[in-house]
Amino acid sequence: MMADITPVLERADANLPKSLDRLFDLVRIKSISTDPAFKAECRKAAEWLVAELNGLGFTASVRETPGHPMVVAHHVGAKANAPHVLFYGHYDVQPVDPLNLWDAPPFEPAIKEIEPGRKVITGRGTSDDKGQLMTFLEAVRAYKEIHDALPCRITILFEGEEESGSPSLKPFLEANAAELKADYALVCDTSMWDSETPAISAGLRGLVGEEIVIKAADRDLHSGFFGGAAANPIHILTDILAGLHDETGRVTLENFYDGVEETPAQIKAAWETLGQTAEKFLGQVGLSIPSGEKGRSVLELTWARPTAEINGITGGYTGEGFKTVIAAQASAKVSFRLVGHQDPAKIRETFRAYVRSKVPADCSVEFHAHGGSPAIHLPYDSSLLNTAKMALSDEWPKPAVVIGMGGSIPIVGDFQRMLGIESLLVGFGLSDDRIHSPNEKYELMSFHKGIRSWIRILDALAA
Amino acid sequence: MMADITPVLERADANLPKSLDRLFDLVRIKSISTDPAFKAECRKAAEWLVAELNGLGFTASVRETPGHPMVVAHHVGAKANAPHVLFYGHYDVQPVDPLNLWDAPPFEPAIKEIEPGRKVITGRGTSDDKGQLMTFLEAVRAYKEIHDALPCRITILFEGEEESGSPSLKPFLEANAAELKADYALVCDTSMWDSETPAISAGLRGLVGEEIVIKAADRDLHSGFFGGAAANPIHILTDILAGLHDETGRVTLENFYDGVEETPAQIKAAWETLGQTAEKFLGQVGLSIPSGEKGRSVLELTWARPTAEINGITGGYTGEGFKTVIAAQASAKVSFRLVGHQDPAKIRETFRAYVRSKVPADCSVEFHAHGGSPAIHLPYDSSLLNTAKMALSDEWPKPAVVIGMGGSIPIVGDFQRMLGIESLLVGFGLSDDRIHSPNEKYELMSFHKGIRSWIRILDALAA
Repeated sequence: MMADITPVLERADANLPKSLDRLFDLVRIKSISTDPAFKAECRKAAEWLVAELNGLGFTASVRETPGHPMVVAHHVGAKANAPHVLFYGHYDVQPVDPLNLWDAPPFEPAIKEIEPGRKVITGRGTSDDKGQLMTFLEAVRAYKEIHDALPCRITILFEGEEESGSPSLKPFLEANAAELKADYALVCDTSMWDSETPAISAGLRGLVGEEIVIKAADRDLHSGFFGGAAANPIHILTDILAGLHDETGRVTLENFYDGVEETPAQIKAAWETLGQTAEKFLGQVGLSIPSGEKGRSVLELTWARPTAEINGITGGYTGEGFKTVIAAQASAKVSFRLVGHQDPAKIRETFRAYVRSKVPADCSVEFHAHGGSPAIHLPYDSSLLNTAKMALSDEWPKPAVVIGMGGSIPIVGDFQRMLGIESLLVGFGLSDDRIHSPNEKYELMSFHKGIRSWIRILDALAA
Repeated sequence: MMADITPVLERADANLPKSLDRLFDLVRIKSISTDPAFKAECRKAAEWLVAELNGLGFTASVRETPGHPMVVAHHVGAKANAPHVLFYGHYDVQPVDPLNLWDAPPFEPAIKEIEPGRKVITGRGTSDDKGQLMTFLEAVRAYKEIHDALPCRITILFEGEEESGSPSLKPFLEANAAELKADYALVCDTSMWDSETPAISAGLRGLVGEEIVIKAADRDLHSGFFGGAAANPIHILTDILAGLHDETGRVTLENFYDGVEETPAQIKAAWETLGQTAEKFLGQVGLSIPSGEKGRSVLELTWARPTAEINGITGGYTGEGFKTVIAAQASAKVSFRLVGHQDPAKIRETFRAYVRSKVPADCSVEFHAHGGSPAIHLPYDSSLLNTAKMALSDEWPKPAVVIGMGGSIPIVGDFQRMLGIESLLVGFGLSDDRIHSPNEKYELMSFHKGIRSWIRILDALAA
C-alpha cells in the first residue's frame, strides 16, 4: 500500500498550517458541557463540525438529544470489501477553573515552543479531545484531496457530553443502532506510551460518580453558640470520606473488590518491560510516593486496580479570612474507578448504604448520580489490533505497545453492548498534556503524526 | 434614682423612631472586615460613628491601625465620685454569603412583623453588633437630652476587626492603655437567656483559629490517569479532620484537655434550673441529637467544654456537574473553642504537629493562624455584676441570670491583661438572631429595652 499513501502523507504535511487553523477555530469554541452557561457554545461546536464534514463530502448533521447535540456523518468507501468503520470523538471540554493558573486564556489557542524543536498547541481541549478528533478529519481530508475517495466506508459520531457523564449517549445509540452499526469503532481519546512510542489501549477502568450532600441544621450556625452540641456536616462528611480507605490503601466498602481479579503474571511482566517507575510517573507532577494500595506498581495501581477518589469537597466559609460558622450543609463529589467485573450499580448502592449508616438521625443526606460504567477489556491479540499496531509502528520512532489505561471511556462498553462491535483505542496525547487541568496542551508532533497515523491505519484496514 | 431616670426612659421611648433611623443608617454600611473588598466601607462605618459621637458631645476620633480603624471617644461625667466606664462594641460585620439564602438584601435594613406583636429589625449586623452598640449610644442620647450631662465618665472604644480576629486590637490597647484605662468595661456583644430574661455572661470560651492548606501534585490531575497512585490532598485533609475526634466525641489532640476543669456541681445545678434541654436548644435550628462529647448537657457542651470545629473546607471541583480531577490542593478552616486554662499557643502547636504527622513526605502543608485567645471567667459575685443584675431585673419581665457563654470575645481577656480591668458582659441578642448566618435579625424589643437597660445600668453604677 505504500505506493498509494505516500502522496497522501505528503498532502497531510503540506496541509499542516491550514489543519492547525481549523483546529484553532474549533478550540476557540467554549464547549464546556458540564456547565449550563455554555450550552450555546456546545451547539456551536457541533455545527462547526457538521460544516467541516459536509465540506469533506460527508452527509453530516446535528442530531438533537435532551442534552448537547450529537454529530453524525456518513461517507462511502472506494472498495466494496473494505470494512466499515465508526469513528468516535467528543467535542466538549472540561471546565477551565481555576482560571488564574492558566498562562494564557484557555480558549485562545496558540503554538508555543516549550524547548528547542518542541512545539505544543495550547488551550482547553487541544488534547482532550478536539486535537485528537481533528487528526482523523485531517487524515480524511488528505485522502480525499489525493484520491477523491476514502479507502473504506466511514461513519462518524461526535458527542458533546463526554466530560459530563454522557447522559444522552445510550438512548441515542439505542435509537440509532442500525444507522451507527459498523464493523468496528475507532476511538481517538487516549494517549501514547511516550513521545516516541504509540500505544493501543486494551483496558479501560469503569467509573461511578456520586455527589453527596450532608444536611444538618436548617441554617448556618455560630460555632460559639452551638459548637460542641450541634452536628457539623463537615465533620460528618470528613468522617465518611476518611473511612473509605483502610491503612493499606484498600477501599473499605463491603464487597467492593467483588469481580476484581489479579493481573496475570505475563501481563505484569510485559508492563515491567516498559520501564515505568513511581519516581518517573509521579515525578512528572511533583510527587514521588505512590498512594493507594500498598505493594503494587504504579502501572498496576492506575491500570488494573479500582479506586475511590474525592474529586471535590465544599462546605462552610471558604472565602478570605475566617468565619466561625457551623455550616448547614457540606458536599463532596466522589468517584470510583472500576476494573474487571465490578458492578457500577452495586458499588453505587453499597456506597450509599455506607454513607447513610454514618449520618446521624437528625441529619440527612442527598445523593446525585453522575455516570456509571463498567471496566472494559479488549482482546490483546485481535487482527484489528495487530493491523493498527503495524501501521502505527511504521509512523513512529518506536513500535506500538498495547497498554492498560486508568481512565474511563464508557463509549467502548456501549459500542460493545449496543452495537455489538469492538473498538480500537488509538490516541496521540501525552501524559503531561494537563488534560482537565490549567494549561492543557497537545504536542504539535502528536497532531501532525497523528494525522499521518490515521492515513496509515485507514489504508491498512482497507487492504 | 428612679425619680431621675423616668424622664430619661420616657425620652428613650419617644426617640425610638429616630433611633431606628440612625441604626438603619449604620446597618446600610457594608462593613465586612474579613473581606478586603469592603475596606472603604469599614472606614465609612468608623467615620459615621465618630460623627454621631461628636454630635452627642463626645470628643471622638477615627484612630488608624494597620487594619481597619478604631473609634475612640471620651465624655466627662457629672459626678466626680462616679466610676469611669469603658464601653466596647464593634462596627464590623460577618460576610453575607450564601447571599441566595437571604429573604431580603442584607444591607437594606427593615422592620418586619414576624408574628402578631413581634417585630424584628432585619439585616446583617443588626444583632452582631451594630444594633447592640447603638442601644448604648441611644441610652447616652436620652440621658444627655434630659440632663445635659452623663451620670458617669464614659470612654468608648469601637473596633472594626472583631469578626476577623482583631489583629490590631492588642497593639492598639498597648499603645493607648493610659487613655483607655477605666474602672471597668461594659461590653455589649452577648445575648439574653430568652426573650424575657436578661443575662450577664460570666464565662466565655477562648478561640484558636487555624487554616490549613494541603498541597500534593503541582497541578490538578486527571483521576483516571493518576487515580490510585497520586496523593489526593482531599483524602489527606479528610483523614486529618476525621481524626480530630474519637467515638465519644472527645478531641484527640495530645494534652488537649490540659487546663480543662469539670464544672462545679453547684454551677451545674444552677444551670439545670434554667430548664434548657437538647430538644429545645437544638430544636430551634432543626436538630435534636447533641453531637460532641457524650453524656453532657447542651449547656455544659456549649459553655464549659472545649471543641474542635471545621468552619470551612474546599478542594477540587465544586461547581455544577462533575469533574474527575485529583486536586493539587485542599484547605480547611478549623477552630478550637477553649475553656478553663487551655493555652491557645500550645493548642495551635499541638494541632500543627498532628497535621504535619499526617502529611505524606511528598506533600506539604501551609498553616495560617486566625486569632487566638484563652477562655475568660469573670467572678460570679462581684458588686459590678450584682448592680447590673438588679438594674436589668427592673427593666425586663424576669430577673437577670448569670450564665456561661459558648462564644469568644477575646477583648475581655485583653482588657483584663492590658488595662487591668474587669468587664461586664450584657447584651440583648436572642439565640435565634441568626448572627453570622443569612437573615440576621435583632428584636425591636431588644433594641428598645436594650436602650432602657443601659439607662438603668449607667444610673445604678453612678449611684
